[in-house]
Amino acid sequence: MKQITIKDVAEAAGVSKATASRVLSGHPATSPEARKAVEAAAGRLGFRPNAQARSLRNTRTQTIGLLLPDVRNPFFGDLAHAVEQRARSFGYMTLFGNANENVEQQDEYIDVMLSQRVDGVIAAPQGDGGNLSQLLRSGVPVVFVDRVLDSIKVPSVSPDNSTGIHDAVKHLTARGHRRIGYIAGPQSTSTGRERLRSYKEALAATGADTDADLIFLGDFQAASGAEGARTLLDLANPPTALLAADSLMSIGAVGVCNERGIAIGTDLAFVAHDDIDAFTLINPPLTVIAHDIDAMGRLAVDMLMSVIGGGSPASHTIPGRLIVRGSTPEFEKERQS
Amino acid sequence: MKQITIKDVAEAAGVSKATASRVLSGHPATSPEARKAVEAAAGRLGFRPNAQARSLRNTRTQTIGLLLPDVRNPFFGDLAHAVEQRARSFGYMTLFGNANENVEQQDEYIDVMLSQRVDGVIAAPQGDGGNLSQLLRSGVPVVFVDRVLDSIKVPSVSPDNSTGIHDAVKHLTARGHRRIGYIAGPQSTSTGRERLRSYKEALAATGADTDADLIFLGDFQAASGAEGARTLLDLANPPTALLAADSLMSIGAVGVCNERGIAIGTDLAFVAHDDIDAFTLINPPLTVIAHDIDAMGRLAVDMLMSVIGGGSPASHTIPGRLIVRGSTPEFEKERQS
Repeated sequence: MKQITIKDVAEAAGVSKATASRVLSGHPATSPEARKAVEAAAGRLGFRPNAQARSLRNTRTQTIGLLLPDVRNPFFGDLAHAVEQRARSFGYMTLFGNANENVEQQDEYIDVMLSQRVDGVIAAPQGDGGNLSQLLRSGVPVVFVDRVLDSIKVPSVSPDNSTGIHDAVKHLTARGHRRIGYIAGPQSTSTGRERLRSYKEALAATGADTDADLIFLGDFQAASGAEGARTLLDLANPPTALLAADSLMSIGAVGVCNERGIAIGTDLAFVAHDDIDAFTLINPPLTVIAHDIDAMGRLAVDMLMSVIGGGSPASHTIPGRLIVRGSTPEFEKERQS
Repeated sequence: MKQITIKDVAEAAGVSKATASRVLSGHPATSPEARKAVEAAAGRLGFRPNAQARSLRNTRTQTIGLLLPDVRNPFFGDLAHAVEQRARSFGYMTLFGNANENVEQQDEYIDVMLSQRVDGVIAAPQGDGGNLSQLLRSGVPVVFVDRVLDSIKVPSVSPDNSTGIHDAVKHLTARGHRRIGYIAGPQSTSTGRERLRSYKEALAATGADTDADLIFLGDFQAASGAEGARTLLDLANPPTALLAADSLMSIGAVGVCNERGIAIGTDLAFVAHDDIDAFTLINPPLTVIAHDIDAMGRLAVDMLMSVIGGGSPASHTIPGRLIVRGSTPEFEKERQS
């Protein structure tokens, strides 16, 4: 098969070879129209940057970019800290970009990171990836962390989104719960999709109720957790246990329970995601599904260093672990019967 | 008075004018020795970059740098979000550096930001400022946020570290407390120093006990809050109320109370700093001293835009506000007497 060259891409896009080259190397001095035409042609023809294109980027800046979805989410704060500390041990500084759960903002950060000539990018990607494919074509090493994309294959380190949820549902049904409400993450993210799928599988496996109205689709932010708790608790036949797919939605949901005088542990069992400090301070402390965030951050950096060095590291999964605390005690009604 | 020129600095430092110029413009291709010699000479002679030096930096990158002390502290996560959103409204992207409460790490980020040619820097400075003076000499606009330095005068937006603490101590003494323990922030930061001074003034003003052993010096991180709570609660004559100078130390201290079965609100009054979501979920929710973080972030960006445009904006203070919640109820012993 003929190797697709930059010349082929330029002809298909109707631009000069120099323009195509600038777009494909991520040079900032290109028009949006040219970028669009060249990107489309490169995608259509299946253009892949070669080692020579990579070696053109011969100026090392000793910086990596870290693209996060939400700097206010404690999970990503901890992840940022882990990545930065590990990168520093390799002599790299980490510059963060906060995409704010917004693809357009992620795209702007990718432009900035390209023009700042970072040596590599660790990203927890948004939506369909946006400009991430441009980043890859420009030859910048990329590793995904926490989230993955079906459309873009790069080495990744992601949480096991199955075991912890299966264990949580098994734990709740063993405690007598049959109606387990679920506040899901956005279905545009792999973590949101995989966790919802695991919840459904676990319900089916344990014989718990599988009513569609036990599921509320949130967006990983606190307000949607509050809305989810209100919606689920207002059901004619409300759940006796709630499970939320991240820490911020858990915070929103617990706030609604407090407002309504619903005693967590006594009136309602609750399982949160992510083992953040604050969850152990709530009375009773929250049962959580946790992943080793430090390990995730360290591995992401190690893998990026491998890619920068020309390697092709295998992807990794970080196990999920159920930590049982006071928010999921024996179910009162069962004990009394 | 004769204007100090780059030539004067070069002669005093014993380097070429080109080297002095590179150092003073923040060019990355300089040796540590040259940087040290030129910095020292520039400081000794009182060299100040002029408008011409600034105009040499004529390539706008439309990025600003944000130097934060601790990305895991929810206060700074919220501040980062506020800065980034406001900067974006001016067409600027924000790159974060996490100094991790460490001057050396802050210095490395300053080097990175200089070589990345950011158009300005918003910093919550560490210790004595380290390379911050180099940043200023290179002509990069700088605004301080949250913390200030005695040694470096730039426009700043900082919290009022007096009113909230005075109100908290008045509130606690009105509730019958005379022994108010204080978990202080590091005295190398302006916030740590000013808050401790306010605590002492407030004790004197209200007539509460002023024993030196009621004060524990922490470092704004959770572990030191836990250690502080243990130390203060183990006193022969322990405090009946605790006040902590930031959110992370508050989290550490509340954790120790839970471990020991000390009921906050009933056995011990507690006042935290910063109005983070998690504090409203604790039962009883925590009384806090809060500042409007969004306003602080917005103002810092507005002031930096003014400096970038050649202005000299006045510094601002953001008022502190006591929000009374269940952790500081009427003092039982007083009610019973």
